[in-house]
Amino acid sequence: MDNRPIGIFDSGLGGLTALKELRRLLPNESFVYFGDTGRVPYGARSPQTLRRFARENIRFLQHYDVKMIVAACGTISSILSEDPAWDPTFPFTGVLRPAAEAACRATRCGRIGVIGTSATIRSGSYERIIRQIMPNVQVFSRACPLFVPLVENGYLEEQNPVTELVARDYLSGLAAERPDTLILGCTHYPLIAPAIRRVMGDGVTLIDPGKETAAAVQAMLSARGICADGSQTSDTRYFASADTEDFGTIAARFLGEPLESAVELVEVDALSRE
Amino acid sequence: MDNRPIGIFDSGLGGLTALKELRRLLPNESFVYFGDTGRVPYGARSPQTLRRFARENIRFLQHYDVKMIVAACGTISSILSEDPAWDPTFPFTGVLRPAAEAACRATRCGRIGVIGTSATIRSGSYERIIRQIMPNVQVFSRACPLFVPLVENGYLEEQNPVTELVARDYLSGLAAERPDTLILGCTHYPLIAPAIRRVMGDGVTLIDPGKETAAAVQAMLSARGICADGSQTSDTRYFASADTEDFGTIAARFLGEPLESAVELVEVDALSRE
Repeated sequence: MDNRPIGIFDSGLGGLTALKELRRLLPNESFVYFGDTGRVPYGARSPQTLRRFARENIRFLQHYDVKMIVAACGTISSILSEDPAWDPTFPFTGVLRPAAEAACRATRCGRIGVIGTSATIRSGSYERIIRQIMPNVQVFSRACPLFVPLVENGYLEEQNPVTELVARDYLSGLAAERPDTLILGCTHYPLIAPAIRRVMGDGVTLIDPGKETAAAVQAMLSARGICADGSQTSDTRYFASADTEDFGTIAARFLGEPLESAVELVEVDALSRE
Repeated sequence: MDNRPIGIFDSGLGGLTALKELRRLLPNESFVYFGDTGRVPYGARSPQTLRRFARENIRFLQHYDVKMIVAACGTISSILSEDPAWDPTFPFTGVLRPAAEAACRATRCGRIGVIGTSATIRSGSYERIIRQIMPNVQVFSRACPLFVPLVENGYLEEQNPVTELVARDYLSGLAAERPDTLILGCTHYPLIAPAIRRVMGDGVTLIDPGKETAAAVQAMLSARGICADGSQTSDTRYFASADTEDFGTIAARFLGEPLESAVELVEVDALSRE
């Protein structure tokens, strides 16, 4: 039993799709969420920059005495999984393995599509981990670099013409490869799932990395005996490195309920200075 | 006469539109360009952090014995222009004043539009400086946060449907205010000027801050008698604080020709350590 909070971070708002699932699945747990909105997007950055951001964000969350850390960011998860020096001394998960495992369970025809940021797709991490789990699967990948800016700028409403157009541009070729399963390899993408589904077709199973990661967190807490026992009121604290007002408004929309506390501002500069 | 190079910096790639104009206008001059891609974006940072970044970037450029420094970045230009302690001891210009002065010269009806990133528009710096120059002008502002991601992701070809749609979305309301002059208040925007022009109409004069800044630099060099004399071959060195490979590719696209030398990597940590 361990009533300390779980720390979650993402480049911005996307990780809230994981937080939403975590709160639903683990109502006794408390959370500290950090959205690095001052440095979003992560998708075009170099591996060394991304490793530095991961270190800094983890160090920030550790100030809040978290019992576990979740990198709810496809890009960071991919980069860390390719880093031989990455060997955390604390309970940790990214979104990569839970999403890859779910896709391997879901596919019938052995054809899996993966979409993500440029850094994620360039790293080849999804392809590599899928092949570890299921060697004979065929993987079709496509970078969708504009999806994160679209989500972060609120191009979310049903049938938004810009989002529809960009989705068609990125995904028509991938749909032609006829995968039966598509990994939304970035936690922002579930927020525009309807536009993605319209290009891919209803027969394709979309894998939501936040949802799969929430299940993985639940399993890890149980296996280690560090679940919260419900004796304390659970809560969530929110931190962002820019635009805390906008963040609060959009976060409430993503979570489907108002935030229980104001979003607290973290100076980007303080992250690297500490 | 002074054959030393001119130093230019920006948070990333946008300042290359100024560099392109400078190279066209001043073919005898040599340049040192620094894109602070490891710390981009600047827009969300505090004024004291931005003042520190300006100091560090200037100090970096001064290692290359530059005769003049150009801040080809709207955010830095506004922060420095609002700082009473900012009093450079070397020839210096930002992009804000040259663009604002050009707009005041161009307008006939006294109605000026300004577009920029969210941070630039929120700061009100363009509006303030325009009013200093021409108190009775009316200024209409609009933030266009998706334009930078569109440019950075190459949505540049003539009549790209996504860029056209986003431009219409951002600018229709501004066009309805009937300005006769529009400041492209971000150095990325000249790259999608045709899409902007199609919404604003042919009668609106578009002010390119890079172009106006290049003219201001030419005037400053002449006034101080520190132009290069053409006796030495001019060249440009490129530095970036991350992602030097992508930087080289996109830089070539911005400049309309391949770079004459490889982009050199500057460690972000070294900037503040020096």
